[in-house]
Amino acid sequence: MENAPHLGLIGLGTMGAALALNIAEKGNAIAVFNRTGSVTDAFMASAGALAGRLTPARTLEEFVAAITPPRSIILMVPAGPVVDDQIARLRPLLGPGDLVIDAGNANYTDTERRVRDCAGEAFDFMGIGVSGGEDGARHGPSIMAGGDAAHWQRMGPLLEAISAKYNDEPCAALMGPGGAGHFVKMVHNGIEYADMQMIAETYSVMRDGMGFAADAVADTFEAWNRGPLASYLIEISGKVARAADPITGGPMLDVILDKAGQKGTGRWTVIEAQHLAVAIPVIEAAVGARNLSARLDDRQKGARVFGAMPQSLPTGSLDTATLEQALIAGKILCYAQGFEMLARASAQFSWDLPMPAIARIWRNGCIIRSEMLNDMARALAEAPGENLIFASPFTAMLRESAAALRKTVTTATAAGIAVPALAAGLSWFDTMRTPRTPANMIQAQRDFFGAHGYERIDGKDAPHGPWGHAAAH
Amino acid sequence: MENAPHLGLIGLGTMGAALALNIAEKGNAIAVFNRTGSVTDAFMASAGALAGRLTPARTLEEFVAAITPPRSIILMVPAGPVVDDQIARLRPLLGPGDLVIDAGNANYTDTERRVRDCAGEAFDFMGIGVSGGEDGARHGPSIMAGGDAAHWQRMGPLLEAISAKYNDEPCAALMGPGGAGHFVKMVHNGIEYADMQMIAETYSVMRDGMGFAADAVADTFEAWNRGPLASYLIEISGKVARAADPITGGPMLDVILDKAGQKGTGRWTVIEAQHLAVAIPVIEAAVGARNLSARLDDRQKGARVFGAMPQSLPTGSLDTATLEQALIAGKILCYAQGFEMLARASAQFSWDLPMPAIARIWRNGCIIRSEMLNDMARALAEAPGENLIFASPFTAMLRESAAALRKTVTTATAAGIAVPALAAGLSWFDTMRTPRTPANMIQAQRDFFGAHGYERIDGKDAPHGPWGHAAAH
Repeated sequence: MENAPHLGLIGLGTMGAALALNIAEKGNAIAVFNRTGSVTDAFMASAGALAGRLTPARTLEEFVAAITPPRSIILMVPAGPVVDDQIARLRPLLGPGDLVIDAGNANYTDTERRVRDCAGEAFDFMGIGVSGGEDGARHGPSIMAGGDAAHWQRMGPLLEAISAKYNDEPCAALMGPGGAGHFVKMVHNGIEYADMQMIAETYSVMRDGMGFAADAVADTFEAWNRGPLASYLIEISGKVARAADPITGGPMLDVILDKAGQKGTGRWTVIEAQHLAVAIPVIEAAVGARNLSARLDDRQKGARVFGAMPQSLPTGSLDTATLEQALIAGKILCYAQGFEMLARASAQFSWDLPMPAIARIWRNGCIIRSEMLNDMARALAEAPGENLIFASPFTAMLRESAAALRKTVTTATAAGIAVPALAAGLSWFDTMRTPRTPANMIQAQRDFFGAHGYERIDGKDAPHGPWGHAAAH
Repeated sequence: MENAPHLGLIGLGTMGAALALNIAEKGNAIAVFNRTGSVTDAFMASAGALAGRLTPARTLEEFVAAITPPRSIILMVPAGPVVDDQIARLRPLLGPGDLVIDAGNANYTDTERRVRDCAGEAFDFMGIGVSGGEDGARHGPSIMAGGDAAHWQRMGPLLEAISAKYNDEPCAALMGPGGAGHFVKMVHNGIEYADMQMIAETYSVMRDGMGFAADAVADTFEAWNRGPLASYLIEISGKVARAADPITGGPMLDVILDKAGQKGTGRWTVIEAQHLAVAIPVIEAAVGARNLSARLDDRQKGARVFGAMPQSLPTGSLDTATLEQALIAGKILCYAQGFEMLARASAQFSWDLPMPAIARIWRNGCIIRSEMLNDMARALAEAPGENLIFASPFTAMLRESAAALRKTVTTATAAGIAVPALAAGLSWFDTMRTPRTPANMIQAQRDFFGAHGYERIDGKDAPHGPWGHAAAH
């Protein structure tokens, strides 16, 4: 019976509205509610033929009553206190067997807390990460679910049905218990920041170093989208570079201010990486670049005080083929760091994250979807505990592309074009192939001033140096 | 009366013992207590002539009873739960007017919480950051106090007396209320990580790129310690490079394993910078390098799989004079970021941090003490709200040294010597002198997939692009 839903959705903003229509389109009846009634009216008016499967409610009581128990209620409201507030309002209305599903961009620690807090309640709680923007939510997002096996048994079929597909495989999976879904979504977003930043850096090399106009930039990204870099972000980079500004008629890109916004998930990724003691320098650099981009006044002052660098590269010092290889290398290094962070979290929290499945459900629907993720899924299936740089085909790809990354970083840096994310990726890679780093100096210093001790390369148990009474050798 | 102390100290580990002796040496009677009585015995046996001013106690009750109210009790116990536990044990024993002072390396958020929790207690609580290692604690540390004016009135004279001096000025000051002292100490430690990492990177260039033996490295650091880089960390870098291993007779540095440890304050700095949305890439890179250094197995595998880079530099491509200038530039950039983080925190938390005083009390006693901090203190006194790169004499120093930093980063990177902190400093500097970054591409992408909107360079209110229906221009 189409109009007696077991499902409900609260929050009819861009993402919630799209998700509700997606759910209805897959044949499900669903009740919908928004705090502001006019938003619900507008949503229903836009629902067209799907309106028959949608039950709008004016009050939360009416909304809950419209759903036949056991109820599954999806929250798509702003992350943070609004979610807690919404749960508190629902609490007296729900009963045994009901399930609240937070599909927003929650910090995974909030999700863990909410799962704990719901332990004594009649209803149950799970958190799922949904990626793909409005278009993904409407036509098939990538879904990273957190919860236990019973949650997945109950919600899995729906989530798989509404998710994106890659070769008919649904881009939805259970990541692990509690906050695992939102954690994986957070790392997804961190990688997204890094992907975007590295693309922007190659754009800067083309624009500032090679004198490319927007159309030439668009040509390059379009060409790259037919090669190993084929991905949604490269595709839309070509599209935005190609687009004309309706006001000036010139390239759209050229009138957009270079102050990047952020909503916090990139920042959270950096914070959690610190808690896990895992190095994700490419993502760190990307988050840092967004912070700095916002400081236009300081940057203009810096250009006045120090003089802007020439930036234009010596003719022939870089070409787009080298840049493409550099971006391939940077991308592999970034994902190697991101998946390593997931592996570390999985061990730390005993989540047993399904590493290959993470790569598989990122192949479509989400913002970072790309062809390369298909190879990553295969590599992680073959060796789930292995860093991607040591897995086929990425070892070979890195062997081939590392020199281009090095050339790009050194050439751009010499000209004063900042490429912080690409440079951070290269530093990480060089460190990961250096059997003897200078960290012995740091250990000597730490022992000198703080008696922190060190290990010796000969394994002998003599952890302190002859400082203070050190005779010259 | 020397044996009727108002002061007490709990925790006679390396730092606590040194601090107690320092306090006694300045003419103060002080009661001491350690959970393990034999530690107290050993401490008293080592106290020599100072023993007359020290009152050892076997139990906490005896310890508190030995102190005449109003009591000032310094905790020097491991940061974290041990502090909470110690406060809980003291609680029933203390009375009005008593003051508990946490002098350990507390996370400032813990200090804030403890100040809040003590609001309803008879006794009071303050947190102070103490830097300088064992030697500093014994003979004069740098002290960053958190608390209100009354706390400082009460404890300031003692803290100034036991602190290091720079031209007779005490290296102790009130930073601000609550956790402000521990916050400043945390940033101090973050800068310390970065200072050490950049020194290690120049060491790597000398050792791996220029073929310097440890003695030549020592010669270089000794020479640098007579110039603008003069500082404790450069001094001890020379000493550890000069030291001989008592076991092998060869250079001490060469037998120390390159796996660096860390205790958390660097990590906290990165985390708090993210909360404040301030970019401190040099510190981030330093923390990341420590994390990677610990992964010796992976690095050895990386060298096998990818081949270690040649690392040796073309003859004459870099010299120690260039390296010295590079390190000067890197150091200025690192401190510019660190002080900016302090300024951001000061505004965010309404702490009104005394920026010039911070530089002043870091001039001696602490691990990062250096001559350059004297210039920084003057620059921050003249323009407290200004980023250091825009303040005299640092603007001029950067103009002179930036080219050397660029040459060092590009030359080392070309040879596969990872210089992540120096490179991150340079990227930051280049971004801070770039009036037009590629962040317009990021804003275009964000608007394309998430309708996040952007500003236009012409200020017009048209925040969304013609995506989807974008005609090629």
